[in-house]
Amino acid sequence: MIVFAKNIITMDAGRRIIRDGYIRITDGVISSVGERSSLGDTGNEQILDASGLTLLPGFIQPHIHLCQTLFRGMADNLELLDWLQLRIFPYENAHSKSSLRVSARLGINELLKGGTTTILDMGTLRHQEVIFEELTASGMRAFAGKCMMDENTLYPAFRNDTRAEMEETYSLAKEFHFKNPRIGYGFAPRFALSCSNALLKETAELQKDFPESILHTHASENKSEIEEVRRRYGKENIDYLDSTGMLTGKSVLAHCIHLNDNEIKTLKERNSAVCHCPSSNLKLSSGIANIPRYLKEGIKVSIGADGAPCNNNLSALIEGRLAALIQKPLHGPLSMDAFTVLKLMTIDGAAALGIDGVTGSIETGKKADFILINLNTYNKSVYDSDESIYSGLIYSGGDADVEFTFVDGNCVYQKDVKEVYDQAELLSEAKMELKSLLNRV
Amino acid sequence: MIVFAKNIITMDAGRRIIRDGYIRITDGVISSVGERSSLGDTGNEQILDASGLTLLPGFIQPHIHLCQTLFRGMADNLELLDWLQLRIFPYENAHSKSSLRVSARLGINELLKGGTTTILDMGTLRHQEVIFEELTASGMRAFAGKCMMDENTLYPAFRNDTRAEMEETYSLAKEFHFKNPRIGYGFAPRFALSCSNALLKETAELQKDFPESILHTHASENKSEIEEVRRRYGKENIDYLDSTGMLTGKSVLAHCIHLNDNEIKTLKERNSAVCHCPSSNLKLSSGIANIPRYLKEGIKVSIGADGAPCNNNLSALIEGRLAALIQKPLHGPLSMDAFTVLKLMTIDGAAALGIDGVTGSIETGKKADFILINLNTYNKSVYDSDESIYSGLIYSGGDADVEFTFVDGNCVYQKDVKEVYDQAELLSEAKMELKSLLNRV
Repeated sequence: MIVFAKNIITMDAGRRIIRDGYIRITDGVISSVGERSSLGDTGNEQILDASGLTLLPGFIQPHIHLCQTLFRGMADNLELLDWLQLRIFPYENAHSKSSLRVSARLGINELLKGGTTTILDMGTLRHQEVIFEELTASGMRAFAGKCMMDENTLYPAFRNDTRAEMEETYSLAKEFHFKNPRIGYGFAPRFALSCSNALLKETAELQKDFPESILHTHASENKSEIEEVRRRYGKENIDYLDSTGMLTGKSVLAHCIHLNDNEIKTLKERNSAVCHCPSSNLKLSSGIANIPRYLKEGIKVSIGADGAPCNNNLSALIEGRLAALIQKPLHGPLSMDAFTVLKLMTIDGAAALGIDGVTGSIETGKKADFILINLNTYNKSVYDSDESIYSGLIYSGGDADVEFTFVDGNCVYQKDVKEVYDQAELLSEAKMELKSLLNRV
Repeated sequence: MIVFAKNIITMDAGRRIIRDGYIRITDGVISSVGERSSLGDTGNEQILDASGLTLLPGFIQPHIHLCQTLFRGMADNLELLDWLQLRIFPYENAHSKSSLRVSARLGINELLKGGTTTILDMGTLRHQEVIFEELTASGMRAFAGKCMMDENTLYPAFRNDTRAEMEETYSLAKEFHFKNPRIGYGFAPRFALSCSNALLKETAELQKDFPESILHTHASENKSEIEEVRRRYGKENIDYLDSTGMLTGKSVLAHCIHLNDNEIKTLKERNSAVCHCPSSNLKLSSGIANIPRYLKEGIKVSIGADGAPCNNNLSALIEGRLAALIQKPLHGPLSMDAFTVLKLMTIDGAAALGIDGVTGSIETGKKADFILINLNTYNKSVYDSDESIYSGLIYSGGDADVEFTFVDGNCVYQKDVKEVYDQAELLSEAKMELKSLLNRV
């Protein structure tokens, strides 16, 4: 198949935007990219003429909680630990297979509509196979894993024995890690406060047995969390995680807001990735991560929406705009320009997941994970330059501008034409499942 | 006409949300509001059945620069004074009548699509009649006024003599102030640094001759600006403005980021309104205004998008979400809850403009300035409560959800059906005008 586009934002190392371009897709892979004028006879090839739209890599969000989508709008005005204790833990604890399924569907639906093609998902304590089933069926690329919790002082009912956690995790990883070539395992001990030292250590060991898998956790999101880690383990959070072996080149740490110089140095030395979640960090009153510093230090940074109840969206473009804006009063108007932010949302997201050789840019040999977006709409720049294209996308772009989402060369979403789920049915099922779930809480 | 809606967010003093409600519109005014079940026989009355949508007051944005919409995406990565000197002043200075007209149209188009029904616009140095003509023709409610500048050390070509400024302003106010009942005059000396002491004093006097008009300026947006005011006048910015008579109950001050305790006290004593512009304040690296404090002090606060080049949108809902989020790390998770933010965007915006008796809430006797929005979409709360309605609107609502915008009982926008301007024509005209303007710079 050949796709024509007005502009192709490649996100390659040369920062190239191809005007009036095309990509050719062969067996789900980008087999050539260039100017349309350089394309010879296309014979009988299938053509998607999107010559009014901008083609770019699909967004990659390495910190999502699909299991929480059902709880959107039910946990506002709370700080992290209250938010977990009073709402999110009780709700997650009450998930049945069917409520978890609809929650995952709501999330996947939203992600694909907003142009996200790859996620790293943190699952929940139980029924993780449902998340794998839904991700597999959706067509999306993902790493996912059961959320591991063998300690829980906030809401004791919501935990499991260390042995059971390790065994279930092992068996899920065995069953799902790259059984579908789009879906890898992301080992997911929730955070230092919900995991024993033994669980963290064993998980870090276990991950090594699954090549190309990810270690996924939360770190240093909230000052009370950090204080409690300090009280329990006599260490700063990142130092503590490091002591368990949790910091490697395969680790993705969500948030990383409150780090001292030494912790930053450790993150860099371990080549671990940060997933910045700006909406969530503001909404839960957590703070603002020093992303410009991390970038300057050469730490891998990506951007994710976190869960719906702390955002309240799963939109890559909403996160991107906010990531661009919130640093400027602190670090000046040049910090986090639109191109840099888009890089974190695409190729750097792929790098965080170790799949930047596979996806994250529009280059020959990469998987055809891309979106087509309309940057010609009422709230975009009239001026046309490379800078104004990045600017239009990051400062003014929104889910509503996304016209097509492709993963592996397959169209998984086309605005007003193709959805993964029937929208009315999904919403009505969600209402029913939420009602039952609230009866169980 | 009668409009049926799933929910009516009234923004009345009782915080009432009416489920399965209606409003009746008679001669552009809301003549009754209530539950649909309480409505008797509707006879031959025209019905708009929006029973899947939520009805609420149109958004009120008391700080907009329509003249800048054409320059969106052309002034990123700059701090306020550089942004003015290097881009905005040269561009505004190069406006012809026709480029100004298309800029105003682009802005009005965007505002109506995003559900904004009333603005306070700061015009530009020349051709202000064009802004009045376009606002009048658009159907929108507005205050507007020529931007006054009799000093300009940043870009000296872009100013005028004090006498000429005063005379032109007087004659515009005479010509346009409430000549159309929707359009009032907003006297608009740009900011302390672009206005002589005499101009500020005379403008403050002149405003008193035009009952129900507004005094509109920028204040305390940027630390260098404040430092320069201090250097020139030996006073803090708000104290200085107060000494000129510019602070009254009819004043709207955009930004107010860096105020000391005494300045806050003065603002309150003068009963002047703040227009908070969160996107702009972040993008220009200006800072974060202490809105929770102003609200606690009882200062009038409203929310505006400012101009497209410092945002880069004119969307009330984008501003609302950001206004809700950015205070929380500083002032806790309870600060700026969704209802409070919506209040600033509607009835408090009306109060800032002195028209809260006329618009800003859904109550009998008020002008029928309202929008119908779809809060049943893929990224909204599944749970249904008053709180989740406010939450869905503020945290997850966007321009794309706005289905209808009404001003004075007239439908000025209906998604995919009715636009004030032909979209393709508007864009093509804008491209042509921008090209000519850039040749003039």
